[in-house]
Amino acid sequence: MKVAVIMGSASDKEKMMGAVDALNEFGIECESKIMSAHRSPELVKDYVTSAPDRGIRVFICGAGYAAHLAGCVAGQTTLPVIGVPLSGSALSGQDSLYATVQMPKGVPVATVAIDGAYNAGLLAVQMLSLANAPLQEKLKAYRTRMAEEVAKKNQ
Amino acid sequence: MKVAVIMGSASDKEKMMGAVDALNEFGIECESKIMSAHRSPELVKDYVTSAPDRGIRVFICGAGYAAHLAGCVAGQTTLPVIGVPLSGSALSGQDSLYATVQMPKGVPVATVAIDGAYNAGLLAVQMLSLANAPLQEKLKAYRTRMAEEVAKKNQ
Amino acid sequence: MKVAVIMGSASDKEKMMGAVDALNEFGIECESKIMSAHRSPELVKDYVTSAPDRGIRVFICGAGYAAHLAGCVAGQTTLPVIGVPLSGSALSGQDSLYATVQMPKGVPVATVAIDGAYNAGLLAVQMLSLANAPLQEKLKAYRTRMAEEVAKKNQ
Amino acid sequence: MKVAVIMGSASDKEKMMGAVDALNEFGIECESKIMSAHRSPELVKDYVTSAPDRGIRVFICGAGYAAHLAGCVAGQTTLPVIGVPLSGSALSGQDSLYATVQMPKGVPVATVAIDGAYNAGLLAVQMLSLANAPLQEKLKAYRTRMAEEVAKKNQ
Amino acid sequence: MKVAVIMGSASDKEKMMGAVDALNEFGIECESKIMSAHRSPELVKDYVTSAPDRGIRVFICGAGYAAHLAGCVAGQTTLPVIGVPLSGSALSGQDSLYATVQMPKGVPVATVAIDGAYNAGLLAVQMLSLANAPLQEKLKAYRTRMAEEVAKKNQ
Amino acid sequence: MKVAVIMGSASDKEKMMGAVDALNEFGIECESKIMSAHRSPELVKDYVTSAPDRGIRVFICGAGYAAHLAGCVAGQTTLPVIGVPLSGSALSGQDSLYATVQMPKGVPVATVAIDGAYNAGLLAVQMLSLANAPLQEKLKAYRTRMAEEVAKKNQ
Amino acid sequence: MKVAVIMGSASDKEKMMGAVDALNEFGIECESKIMSAHRSPELVKDYVTSAPDRGIRVFICGAGYAAHLAGCVAGQTTLPVIGVPLSGSALSGQDSLYATVQMPKGVPVATVAIDGAYNAGLLAVQMLSLANAPLQEKLKAYRTRMAEEVAKKNQ
Amino acid sequence: MKVAVIMGSASDKEKMMGAVDALNEFGIECESKIMSAHRSPELVKDYVTSAPDRGIRVFICGAGYAAHLAGCVAGQTTLPVIGVPLSGSALSGQDSLYATVQMPKGVPVATVAIDGAYNAGLLAVQMLSLANAPLQEKLKAYRTRMAEEVAKKNQ
Repeated sequence: MKVAVIMGSASDKEKMMGAVDALNEFGIECESKIMSAHRSPELVKDYVTSAPDRGIRVFICGAGYAAHLAGCVAGQTTLPVIGVPLSGSALSGQDSLYATVQMPKGVPVATVAIDGAYNAGLLAVQMLSLANAPLQEKLKAYRTRMAEEVAKKNQ
Repeated sequence: MKVAVIMGSASDKEKMMGAVDALNEFGIECESKIMSAHRSPELVKDYVTSAPDRGIRVFICGAGYAAHLAGCVAGQTTLPVIGVPLSGSALSGQDSLYATVQMPKGVPVATVAIDGAYNAGLLAVQMLSLANAPLQEKLKAYRTRMAEEVAKKNQ
Repeated sequence: MKVAVIMGSASDKEKMMGAVDALNEFGIECESKIMSAHRSPELVKDYVTSAPDRGIRVFICGAGYAAHLAGCVAGQTTLPVIGVPLSGSALSGQDSLYATVQMPKGVPVATVAIDGAYNAGLLAVQMLSLANAPLQEKLKAYRTRMAEEVAKKNQ
Repeated sequence: MKVAVIMGSASDKEKMMGAVDALNEFGIECESKIMSAHRSPELVKDYVTSAPDRGIRVFICGAGYAAHLAGCVAGQTTLPVIGVPLSGSALSGQDSLYATVQMPKGVPVATVAIDGAYNAGLLAVQMLSLANAPLQEKLKAYRTRMAEEVAKKNQ
Repeated sequence: MKVAVIMGSASDKEKMMGAVDALNEFGIECESKIMSAHRSPELVKDYVTSAPDRGIRVFICGAGYAAHLAGCVAGQTTLPVIGVPLSGSALSGQDSLYATVQMPKGVPVATVAIDGAYNAGLLAVQMLSLANAPLQEKLKAYRTRMAEEVAKKNQ
Repeated sequence: MKVAVIMGSASDKEKMMGAVDALNEFGIECESKIMSAHRSPELVKDYVTSAPDRGIRVFICGAGYAAHLAGCVAGQTTLPVIGVPLSGSALSGQDSLYATVQMPKGVPVATVAIDGAYNAGLLAVQMLSLANAPLQEKLKAYRTRMAEEVAKKNQ
Repeated sequence: MKVAVIMGSASDKEKMMGAVDALNEFGIECESKIMSAHRSPELVKDYVTSAPDRGIRVFICGAGYAAHLAGCVAGQTTLPVIGVPLSGSALSGQDSLYATVQMPKGVPVATVAIDGAYNAGLLAVQMLSLANAPLQEKLKAYRTRMAEEVAKKNQ
Repeated sequence: MKVAVIMGSASDKEKMMGAVDALNEFGIECESKIMSAHRSPELVKDYVTSAPDRGIRVFICGAGYAAHLAGCVAGQTTLPVIGVPLSGSALSGQDSLYATVQMPKGVPVATVAIDGAYNAGLLAVQMLSLANAPLQEKLKAYRTRMAEEVAKKNQ
């Protein structure tokens, strides 16, 4: 039960690190890859179609500009695909948000906030927890910790 | 293994019907409810916290304007929450899209396109399929059918 | 007769300081708290429902991204709630503005400018002045001073 | 203890009716006037400065396009001013929203949703309730009724 | 020397007709096809890679929402690709414009106006005219006619 | 024959300097003042209504945020009013542009680009030149110089 | 002393009628022409450069989409040019507004509201009044009438 | 067979360098010029109409703000015109994007991403390759190299 974290360009690495961090926190193994829907479509196709055999169950795709990566991956698999619109262009991520979330009927992409890589990792964990009861417990503990941290800030 | 389809107002029913349709197509049982993050916060809390015991595994939340419903549900559960931003206000759903997708760190909402209720249902099926192999097969068959229909249009 | 100044995250403190400053200038006592509509919904509920007994009469809520804090507070009280959309995300506060101001029928949030915390404090004072004649006089004196300062700049 | 409901043009009447409706529901008397910040600035000034003597305690101002009415009224009084950005221009109210809410430091306008006249009325009632305990009770009853109506829709 | 006119959905036919009209006016043969970057990625790949052998020299791709079609075609060919962002979603084509034009370095899409199918056809003719002198003459004649028609309207 | 250059805040001075520069270049005398439509409405009214007697023929008004200054001045005079929307808020001048240009029927504001103070000065000169033939000659000479400078850059 | 009212397309006639109406109300003669910056650039150049000899003192230019007409006219004359951004495209005039108002340094366009043709006419009258004292009186009378009409609506 | 790379201002040189780089990579000769649609319309006209005789086959035009350069060039030639919207104004290139891409029927501009000068060069090469088979081979080699580079990043 692994998660693929793929991104359109090497320059997206820092922004996408949050997804890996979140998965690590919950003990979920991940594969982190760079591939482009436009510059290496064959690589995308081969990677996505072979992924289930390597244990991949969820894809997290980060891309900026006319961000097609998540949509292209979603067109090659029926596993859940999470899209992370990345800022970086002159349009500050409004372009990548629209290009990621406004998917046509039949091929959804589960979109998170612009640059929201950490939440993408967390969402992947939530999805995996549907088939993994201990993960549900870890998520509840994480949520409790989070509420406690907020409470502490007011003391 | 059920899905909750909740919406902020009775007037959202028609727009959210697509989610129920998608779930029905895949034989997934769903509960469809109207409740508001602002007008009935207690109802939301009670519904969400009691949902797992009724077999709910995924929440689909549709709302317009300053759409807080998905975020509020996500704050009450660690199960995956799918948000459907609804158009209808003067801002044509740009308001509900931002209010749904731009969630802060720690509480993700899996956002689909504005008025994309059908895809929300499909995404829920994809999530459930992680713990349900036959559902994966149904999704693959659906995808094949979809490609065939496109092909037929060119004949 | 106190005002609650609450914000979604410790990182919002500097931006929300203006609200506290404005209240101090008019001699209004305030409680400044950090709590999140998503990460600590119980804390929000408990705080808001117990606030009137501590003399709170107005809530000022600052939040960024999909800013739900003001709306969630407004759903738990019938006292006036002032929302301050905070910039900080890739969308420069357009997201928090829409998520704060576009409230559905029945639960208003009195929204001020993006990062307009000082004006939020001033608006709270104006509201309190409805039940406090000396405060009205202070507001008039403040306005006169403000006009005089503008006049001085042209000498 | 009255509320002024003023609007920039006779064509705004239907959109602003909601404010009057809300005030009526809570038994608050109101004056409804048409006046323009640009076409009749003297009228605005005379009306606003004489309003307190007629018992006006809150102003509700609805305007479209470069909606200056609420801001101009706010510049003439220290009583709370509620702004209702109206749609109607080619920009669907994004222009009036920005022109109403983005007030500079020192002169706040409590802005509600685009075309949110009803909520403007409700917000005025919330403000007045600070000096009127029975009004607080009515607001709580209204809120309870609203939650009950939501609950009924699910039966 | 042919042009491919492809579109994401059968419902785009009417909006894309202008491209076919423009090509017909200049005597350029075209193939009009429906295929989706997401629902039928294999079909897109097969069609695009086999197109040069059928004489296709330019691709015109029309799509709405998160319009990936032009970008996906551009990733499969080094021939010029013209993108026509189509309106139709709640975001009125702002989504498809951004998803079409904001292509990353290395894979350009020649984007025309939202719903600008006729101009896409004309642009294809201009491109083909680089290797076809008589087409240049036809374009000049068209331009002259256009100027004369404008002149006539003032008589 | 003078021009008034007024701005909403002392912090706008640097951005508005371009207007003074342009007027100086053409030998047009100007009065530069700070006054606020909201913080000093009386000052605005007195200044504008007394301006013609001091030889003012055109007003240039620069303001940011919900920029009402140009509109308020335009409501107090029938002389031409030029509005300069200033950036500076989180919305980068989109707010001040809409608040300046979207004036309702009957009270126009001649709006220039965001932060386009120099062009505002130039536009004022063009207006004054309608009653001042030598100014027309100066404008033509300026235009010729400008074209020559562009030409020089290519040598 | 005449005004030119030119528009990019015959389909803009109805929207631009307001400019002619305003000019007629003030007894200003006008020439109304259709010409396109792109489809008939020579016609634009010839018309604009010969206009002063026919008594034209101000240009009003209405165009939609990437509205270049006002800018192109402004590049051919040193007389004042008023731009009217027209709605009609999928972007509701946001495109034509930006294309009209965001002129670079050296060549201003006096921009009015989207579809604000009447105000464009009024602004032309204000400009002409700088060299025409009786026109100033007519403008004052118009303004007084306008204020009286507003006052009447409240009786 | 040359390409013209023209830009509205000397300050655009750095941003437009990418176009020259791309052309150089493919051995395409280019002319790089500064000229303004508004400040030097005659220069633009003379340059564009004389360009074919110097071997120019494609125009690349970069401009910011109300970017009319590409559109004006397109109105003077029937050769393909590529527009590069440049950021730099307060609106971050949204203004130049709309002013470049939203061309009216009859005069297309092939628009690339905001600041996408390199892709503009590449698109020009793709166009020229229609009449130049070896260029097609170079483009394929470039694409293969690009895919290989992506693949290498994952080793």
